[in-house]
Amino acid sequence: MTGLAEDKLKLQLEQLIAGKPSALARTITAVENQTPEARYILKGIQPHIGNALVVGFTGPPGAGKSTLINAYVRELRNRGKTVCVLAVDPSSPISGGAILGDRIRMAEHTGDAGVFVRSLASRGHLGGLSRTAARVLDVMDASGRDVIVIETVGAGQSEVEIAGVAGTKVVVCAPGLGDDIQAIKAGILEIADVLVVNKSDMPQAENTKRQLRTMLHLRQASDWNVPVLGTVATTFEGLPELADTIDNHDEALRGADHKIDPHQRIRRVLAETLAHAIEDKLMGSSDPALIEVLNDVQSGELNFDEASQKLLEQMKLL
Amino acid sequence: MTGLAEDKLKLQLEQLIAGKPSALARTITAVENQTPEARYILKGIQPHIGNALVVGFTGPPGAGKSTLINAYVRELRNRGKTVCVLAVDPSSPISGGAILGDRIRMAEHTGDAGVFVRSLASRGHLGGLSRTAARVLDVMDASGRDVIVIETVGAGQSEVEIAGVAGTKVVVCAPGLGDDIQAIKAGILEIADVLVVNKSDMPQAENTKRQLRTMLHLRQASDWNVPVLGTVATTFEGLPELADTIDNHDEALRGADHKIDPHQRIRRVLAETLAHAIEDKLMGSSDPALIEVLNDVQSGELNFDEASQKLLEQMKLL
Repeated sequence: MTGLAEDKLKLQLEQLIAGKPSALARTITAVENQTPEARYILKGIQPHIGNALVVGFTGPPGAGKSTLINAYVRELRNRGKTVCVLAVDPSSPISGGAILGDRIRMAEHTGDAGVFVRSLASRGHLGGLSRTAARVLDVMDASGRDVIVIETVGAGQSEVEIAGVAGTKVVVCAPGLGDDIQAIKAGILEIADVLVVNKSDMPQAENTKRQLRTMLHLRQASDWNVPVLGTVATTFEGLPELADTIDNHDEALRGADHKIDPHQRIRRVLAETLAHAIEDKLMGSSDPALIEVLNDVQSGELNFDEASQKLLEQMKLL
Repeated sequence: MTGLAEDKLKLQLEQLIAGKPSALARTITAVENQTPEARYILKGIQPHIGNALVVGFTGPPGAGKSTLINAYVRELRNRGKTVCVLAVDPSSPISGGAILGDRIRMAEHTGDAGVFVRSLASRGHLGGLSRTAARVLDVMDASGRDVIVIETVGAGQSEVEIAGVAGTKVVVCAPGLGDDIQAIKAGILEIADVLVVNKSDMPQAENTKRQLRTMLHLRQASDWNVPVLGTVATTFEGLPELADTIDNHDEALRGADHKIDPHQRIRRVLAETLAHAIEDKLMGSSDPALIEVLNDVQSGELNFDEASQKLLEQMKLL
């Protein structure tokens, strides 16, 4: 790197940390494209990570997620907080328009320097989205914004993975579960830190809340009791309570230094990447030790958990 | 095991292989509950596995999947084939009724000894369903049925995993993608061997087929070109073509001995089980080598693929 190029990068890094939107936008593009500049900046921002509250919203289409996020951002602005919105659309090479529609709804906040909005699309490589999102979060975090909101379009596997990099995960649904239950059972209830029944002025809302609470009882107990909130995003009902609840969860996540462990989201994405790699490897392997284990499963000698355990023991494991 | 108990088991095994429904039902229950009897029988059926055509149907709710499966089973019966239907509902502890509704629709085939229907429910342990399904398939396969149909309720992550144990994977959707695309992008297009647009007498059907073909172009090329078929399950339109296409795909899967490699579905489930175990392990590990790699990702020295590769190399891999 020439001295001049390095000076420029140093300036970009300074401007990013100072919260300048143009530096933030430029750096995100560099991170998306994995340029050498991105490496320089990712290194430089390390001391500035771990302050932002990162909250991911997911849930089936039709639950009014975008309107709710819009209202949540308004509540944050009322409280004097600065915000980044990271909108992620795993389907975008095909559906394209979904996020664009959301951006139009987010128009309420254009011209407000306290709200920075950025979309990420998959460009045909689905698995890569949560990886890029994790690094973009670091950049947004370092820019000094108080809250980062991750918005995903639906409630599929990719959305769950992407939302998984957030510290606080909000799952939004509409009253009258019906088809929604299809989305909710697909692993998204398991990741929820906060459940929201939006449009809770509809008649079935109370019933839906009750159903969700019953479903939650099937989950393993943990330190955090997942609250089930009701909101009406269009009339702002329940928004202050939602913001408080998200704050409380974020506070519970933080250590004694009041920082979020920045390894946590990287660890999650790396674990997923490695798991996929190992799955691929196993599908193609003809290693004799593996074949022996497969034979033992086939004949009923081992069940899948025992077989997995046996393979784990044969690997030098971290 | 006493001699008497072993005699009884031997008889059950013989009756199972002879295709007796009561022996099939009893054995499936034993496999679900992982009893010692199940081990004995899983061992005994080994030489009798690999003959059945196994086809999994998945797709968003509302696509008319159950009606289509019902019609497909009728087509198979017209062709003189014997059938097992394995209905799997990952959400059943909560929604309960979904599969029951399907069973009522399957009533057309009750009293037909050539159709054996069995439901599997998750009993609260989601990850275990595809494992149980894989073993139940072996039992159904050994019972000499020509075709085994796996029916899942929705199109979430668990359904995709369960359908993944089938040799031939059929993804069903309705015309007018809209919300369906939410389900389709959640990894289910990736697994499809055959795509069906059901209710294809609706006006948007041709448009939907075209969209699906475009989406398929984004997939990696393989030996098998995924066909996009149109059906109207209620009027039986396109059913013979669907049955032929499934036969063709099954034929393409078979080796020189015309048998399906029975390791294939067990390998898939074992790979998933191991991948989940490794993901859990990584989330909780404080191994210094892992922390070093995490630091390198954090600082931008390594991207996620490079980091995953490095960890793979540090493991004694199969």
